[in-house]
Formats: sequence, structure tokens, C-alpha cells
Amino acid sequence: MVDVSAKPVTAREARAEGYVRCSRAVLDLVAEGGLPKGDALAVARIAGLQAAKRTPDLIPLAHPVAVHAVEVDVVPVEDGVRITAAVRTADRTGIEMEALTCVVVAGLTFVDMVKAVDRRTVLDGVRVTAKSGGRSGDWSVDE
Amino acid sequence: MVDVSAKPVTAREARAEGYVRCSRAVLDLVAEGGLPKGDALAVARIAGLQAAKRTPDLIPLAHPVAVHAVEVDVVPVEDGVRITAAVRTADRTGIEMEALTCVVVAGLTFVDMVKAVDRRTVLDGVRVTAKSGGRSGDWSVDE
Amino acid sequence: MVDVSAKPVTAREARAEGYVRCSRAVLDLVAEGGLPKGDALAVARIAGLQAAKRTPDLIPLAHPVAVHAVEVDVVPVEDGVRITAAVRTADRTGIEMEALTCVVVAGLTFVDMVKAVDRRTVLDGVRVTAKSGGRSGDWSVDE
Amino acid sequence: MVDVSAKPVTAREARAEGYVRCSRAVLDLVAEGGLPKGDALAVARIAGLQAAKRTPDLIPLAHPVAVHAVEVDVVPVEDGVRITAAVRTADRTGIEMEALTCVVVAGLTFVDMVKAVDRRTVLDGVRVTAKSGGRSGDWSVDE
Amino acid sequence: MVDVSAKPVTAREARAEGYVRCSRAVLDLVAEGGLPKGDALAVARIAGLQAAKRTPDLIPLAHPVAVHAVEVDVVPVEDGVRITAAVRTADRTGIEMEALTCVVVAGLTFVDMVKAVDRRTVLDGVRVTAKSGGRSGDWSVDE
Amino acid sequence: MVDVSAKPVTAREARAEGYVRCSRAVLDLVAEGGLPKGDALAVARIAGLQAAKRTPDLIPLAHPVAVHAVEVDVVPVEDGVRITAAVRTADRTGIEMEALTCVVVAGLTFVDMVKAVDRRTVLDGVRVTAKSGGRSGDWSVDE
Repeated sequence: MVDVSAKPVTAREARAEGYVRCSRAVLDLVAEGGLPKGDALAVARIAGLQAAKRTPDLIPLAHPVAVHAVEVDVVPVEDGVRITAAVRTADRTGIEMEALTCVVVAGLTFVDMVKAVDRRTVLDGVRVTAKSGGRSGDWSVDE
Repeated sequence: MVDVSAKPVTAREARAEGYVRCSRAVLDLVAEGGLPKGDALAVARIAGLQAAKRTPDLIPLAHPVAVHAVEVDVVPVEDGVRITAAVRTADRTGIEMEALTCVVVAGLTFVDMVKAVDRRTVLDGVRVTAKSGGRSGDWSVDE
Repeated sequence: MVDVSAKPVTAREARAEGYVRCSRAVLDLVAEGGLPKGDALAVARIAGLQAAKRTPDLIPLAHPVAVHAVEVDVVPVEDGVRITAAVRTADRTGIEMEALTCVVVAGLTFVDMVKAVDRRTVLDGVRVTAKSGGRSGDWSVDE
Repeated sequence: MVDVSAKPVTAREARAEGYVRCSRAVLDLVAEGGLPKGDALAVARIAGLQAAKRTPDLIPLAHPVAVHAVEVDVVPVEDGVRITAAVRTADRTGIEMEALTCVVVAGLTFVDMVKAVDRRTVLDGVRVTAKSGGRSGDWSVDE
Repeated sequence: MVDVSAKPVTAREARAEGYVRCSRAVLDLVAEGGLPKGDALAVARIAGLQAAKRTPDLIPLAHPVAVHAVEVDVVPVEDGVRITAAVRTADRTGIEMEALTCVVVAGLTFVDMVKAVDRRTVLDGVRVTAKSGGRSGDWSVDE
Repeated sequence: MVDVSAKPVTAREARAEGYVRCSRAVLDLVAEGGLPKGDALAVARIAGLQAAKRTPDLIPLAHPVAVHAVEVDVVPVEDGVRITAAVRTADRTGIEMEALTCVVVAGLTFVDMVKAVDRRTVLDGVRVTAKSGGRSGDWSVDE
């Protein structure tokens, strides 16, 4: 684990995204509120938010970071749902892993909520899209 | 949470897979054992294994399941690494979510181990590939 | 910790309830969907459900129990919300503590969601209302 | 989750209380040290203390807070036990939820320790009694 | 992780022990109830009991096991305290690791409770002393 | 729990060590990479690293500390393996307990990895060897 104790406390943000590809039938049930296990979008959001706080429990070399804000959205798109997360902290190291953990756990929770209807879902395209703050400076995937 | 208390205890298995797409530079460092944070493949495997046991902590409507076996591999492929997990139990409900959780946490751990070298990694193609046991019978993604 | 290894696996259920007393202003905002932190009823339900699975982590002498079903409701009543939980298992010991843990964490989550609007909420009347299965037989608080 | 990254680190305290109503028989056994499961007051105190540290794992929108001090008491009163908690931190957001979580888990642990003797216990009157520090200033329930 | 799903559920027990070597001053304070942080023996026992249930979270290749009974003692001896644990289950694999985890966490908790008085404590002699049940049969360290 | 909220944030380090005594047969298998459960040294290191972050979950009166660096080694010696840990933070209280927790969990993980070959392993000599930073100043076991 890299030593970050001498790094300054600075404001940092990381953004990540991902997709769950699923069937039309799932998206229709989501739109109608007809899924047997309940509101998949809401449960996925909350699960993602909570998972962001569990990141150092899951990723062996991740530092504990004081998660100061999490925004997570799970929004239907043409062939599934798009998950986006923005995580902020004032701490000594970055929080990309928190943003990614938020996205994958929100994604898997969506998969769990719909798997009785569609067992062929795929979690795809999970990546960091932007980060700011810290020594390495601002960065966005579009650069 | 679906009531599974009246379902019989049966042997069940689930298999899942996923990919982390990364740069040639990362794969070369993995091959040489030259990554600054250490052996990314080994750390990813162990993190995935442990995460399989944490699934009901992460996925709100997932039942606690007695995880009786986990096999996880993280293997370099042309444009990244392929992660595969096989999870087995003798319990009252399926363990697809355990297999998927194993894959995504192994994948994110790999991302964490290499992110100082490549910040454009993508976790892709995470899906259940096969399951056996339980009321819904055997199934494979190739059917 | 009482030794339950020689007890038979039987179907068991426990029900519990509790109340969060809060202001009219809170209940109006809940009804309108106008709380700044989001849907307090939905977040409370999910938090309660997840907490039921964490019971042995929280209550030192509680046995790990295979939680096979959780139903939790958080429903507005005249002076607050009523929380009810029903938890089921097929295991060697009772799950009253799981039902109670579900109720208190759902209750505190509701408190957290509304505390910017009402800092005088009170969690009240948390108790087991019924249990069935196991050696001690069926029981209800109305007996 | 509200963004607190730009708030200053300040000393903060929260106090909370609650009651477990129980039978005379339980209180006599507590006084005599005759409960079959052991010292209910001591176990409840320790469980409450540990739970304060687990608050962000339990309450979805609670921020991780550096818990710098916890005092918890579980004291017999006329019709049960009174639980009080005082929690302190130097951090960017309040710790009322930590104080409340401490009280409810101490309370449920007491319930668990005595439930073989009294299955009609009730956890009651759980509320924040005072807070100090932070932007919203000092406050006490008696105001 | 070794596959245990096909093994039968049988009653199993494991016993373990360990020592914390500490100064005479510590033992005198323990005897008088004069330690600044409180009752070190009681807190160590409860911490050990809870840790037994967390074993699969800590030991990567340990299977989740249904912990059905834990007995833990922390008893002053000539040059420190002796910790003993007995853990029982009816499950598909052994629980030696649960007994050992109970002993080491009880031991470290004792160390934590007394470290302001004695910073030279040593945790020593942690080992399994007996096991029974399961395919490999009964065994004791004295054989 | 001692109140540390008014203490300054300072750089702190703690070092700890311990031993697992095991048979020649185990050491030979470790050297050859022939253990049935895999690379015991690598798994033990990762488990120790992760456990350092879990310390306040395990030790009731331990404060949550921002673990900023962990180094852990598990090295074969004549009659077993020697485990060393160095943990660093910039926080308000010491991290000796994190260093000790790292050592014992690395040690028990090694025990778990080799117990099919040697059931008579002993975890021994676990102690803090040095600390620096904080009010009580620098200290080493050799003084």
C-alpha cells in the first residue's frame, strides 16, 4: 500500500460510468414498475451509494478514504441502463476506486433485481470518466 | 426478499466471466512482474475470492448463501485480462450473484493495481456463463 | 453463546414493529416526495432489509442465521411512520433479533433522511409481535 | 449524500438516549448477576460502542465519520434500563446518527441478553438529546 | 477454496488457546479493577466471541461456517492471561480457524486495554488444542 | 473510548512482528510452491494488509484510524515464518493495534494455508517492536 500520509488533504472528485445491457422486456417492466422484486433503479442506486463506502474492504490495496459525497444515477437507455457515479472527498488520495465500486455494485444490484426476467444481462463499459484534484491534476476520458 | 426457506438444500454451481481491457504496457509489466504495486493477478484472485463471501452485504436482496467453493482465475488475453469464477454451494438458492461479485471485485482490484500505469482500463462483458442445480435447472449462455 | 448445534433445522418466523414519531411537516414532505435527501420510505426499507442480514455482526451473542426472507414496511401513520418486519428462516435458532434489527435500522434511516427537517424525532415501541417455529412454539404479543 | 467536503473540520458532540422496558424479574436477575447469558449491562455497553463505529455501514446516506470518543451507559431504572450515549469527533459533519446507533444496538443487545426471561421487552424513547459544534450550532432537546 | 459442498453436515468442535504475557502491574490492576480503559477480561471475551463469527471475512480461504456455540475465557495466570476458546458447529467443514480467530482477537483486545500501562505485552502460544467431528476424526494436541 | 478529538493530526508509525512455528515439511512445500491451497506467503500478506484496515471492527475500544500505508512481510525462517508489519498514518491516535492486527491475521492465514499439512502450528511472539510520532514519542522494543 503506497504511503500517502505525507500528502496534503485536498478536494478530489472522481466520476465513473457503466452499463447493464438487458432485454426490452426488462426495460418495459422497469418503466411500468412491474418487476417482481421491486424498484430496480432505486435499489441499485442505494446499493451503489453504500458500496462506495465499503471500497477499502473490497479492494486490498485501496486506502480508506473519507467519502464526503456520492451521487449515483441509474437511467434507462436504449439497450439497458446507464450507471453514473460522482464521488467527492477532501483527503490525501484519490477516489476513483470508490466511484468504480459504486458503479459495479449498482450494476450488479440491477442484475439481481431483474435476473428472474432476464438471465442474459451483461455489465459493460465500467470505467473512470473524469477525476480532479490531487497531484496528478484534472483528467477526463475525452482528452 | 423472496422466501426460500421452504426450498430444498441442493448442490448448485454458477460460473461467470468478465474482462478488464488494458494497455499493452500493463500486460508487459504483468508478464515481467514489474508493476509498482505488486502481483496484480494474485491480488485480484484473492480479492475476488473474498468478495464472493461478501455478496449479501453488497447486494440488498441477495440471500446469505453458504459459499462452499470458489475458483477464480485472472488470465492475460490479447487486450487485457479475462476473469472467470466458479462458485458452488449446497443451499436453498442460487449463487449467480456470488460468481458475478467475485468477477467484478477481481476486475476492479486489477484496475487498482495497474491504474498508475493505465488510467483508461475498462471492465467489460461481466455475465453469468452457466448455472446448474436448483429448480430452474441447468443453463449455459451458449444455449 | 448458547450451543444450538444439536437443535433441528425448522422453519421459523419472527415479526417485529416500531414507530418513528415525527412532525406533521415531515409527513407532508414524505407525502409530496419533497424531502431534500430523497425517498425516506424506500431508503428506510432497503436499509432495514440489509441490516437484518448484519444482525450477528451487531449483537454479540446472536448466532449467525440463514435469513431466507425479509419483508419490511415503513408506512405513514398519524404521528409518524410505523415500521413492520417479518423475517423467516429454516435454521436451528430463532430470528427475533433479525426482525428487531431490521426495524431499528429502518427507523434510524428514516430519522437520518428527515433530520434536516425535524431534529425531534423519536424511535418508539420497538418490540417482537409474533414468532412461530422452534421448540418454544408459536407466540404472539396479543396472547 | 450531501457533499460535506468543503465544510471545515470542527469538534462536534452528539448525545442520545433510549429505554428498554422490561419485567421486574429481569431487573432482579440483572441486579443479582443471575442472567443465564451473562452480564447484560456490560455486553450491551460494548455492543453499543462498537456499533457507533459501524454507523455508515448501516445508514445508507450517513457519511463516514472519524469517531473520536464514545461513552455509553446502560443503567437500571424503575421499569427497565436507560441507555445514554455521547459521541465526539473532529470532522466535517455531525454524529447524531452515531449516537443513535450506539443507543439502539446497546438496547437490542440488552433485549437479546434477557429475552429468554422476558419476551415482552420494548425499546422506547430513542432520540437525540443534545448536539454541539458544526454550522447549525448547539442544541438541546430541552430548549 | 476447497469444495466442501458434498461433505455431510456433522457436529464439530475445535478448541484453541493462547497467552498474553504482561507485567505484574497489569495483573494487579486487572485484579483491582483499576485499569483506565475498564474491565479488560470482559471486553476481551466479548471481542473474541464476535471475532469468531467474522473469521471468513478475515481469512481468505476460510469457508463461511454456521457458528453454533462459542465459549471463551480469559483468565489471569502467573505471567499474563491465558485465553481459551471452544467453538462448535453442525456444518460441512471444520472450525479450527474460528477458534484461533477468537483467541487472537481476545488476546489483542486485552493488549489494547492494557497498553497504556504495559507496552511490552506479547501474544504467545496460539494453537489449536483439540478438534472433534468431521472426516479427519478426533484429535488433541497431547496425542 | 478515550477522547482523541482534541489531539493534533501527526505522522505516526508502528511496527510489529510475530512468528508462526511450523514443521520442516511445511517450509519445504512453501519453498517448492507445493502447498495444496496455493501460495501461503502471498495470501498471508494480502490478508494481513486487509486486516489492518479492519482493526476498529475487531478491537472494541480501538479508534477508527486512517491507514495511510501498510507494509507486511512473511518470510521463512529456521523453524517457521517471521511476519513483520509497518503501518503509517497521519491521524490523532496511534496505530499499534493496526500493526498487531496485521501480524496476527497474516499469521492465522498462513496457519490456514498449511493446516492440512501441519496441524501443530503455533503463532508466537506477537508484539509491537517500535512506534514513532504522537505525544508519547518514539519508542523501540530494544530500548
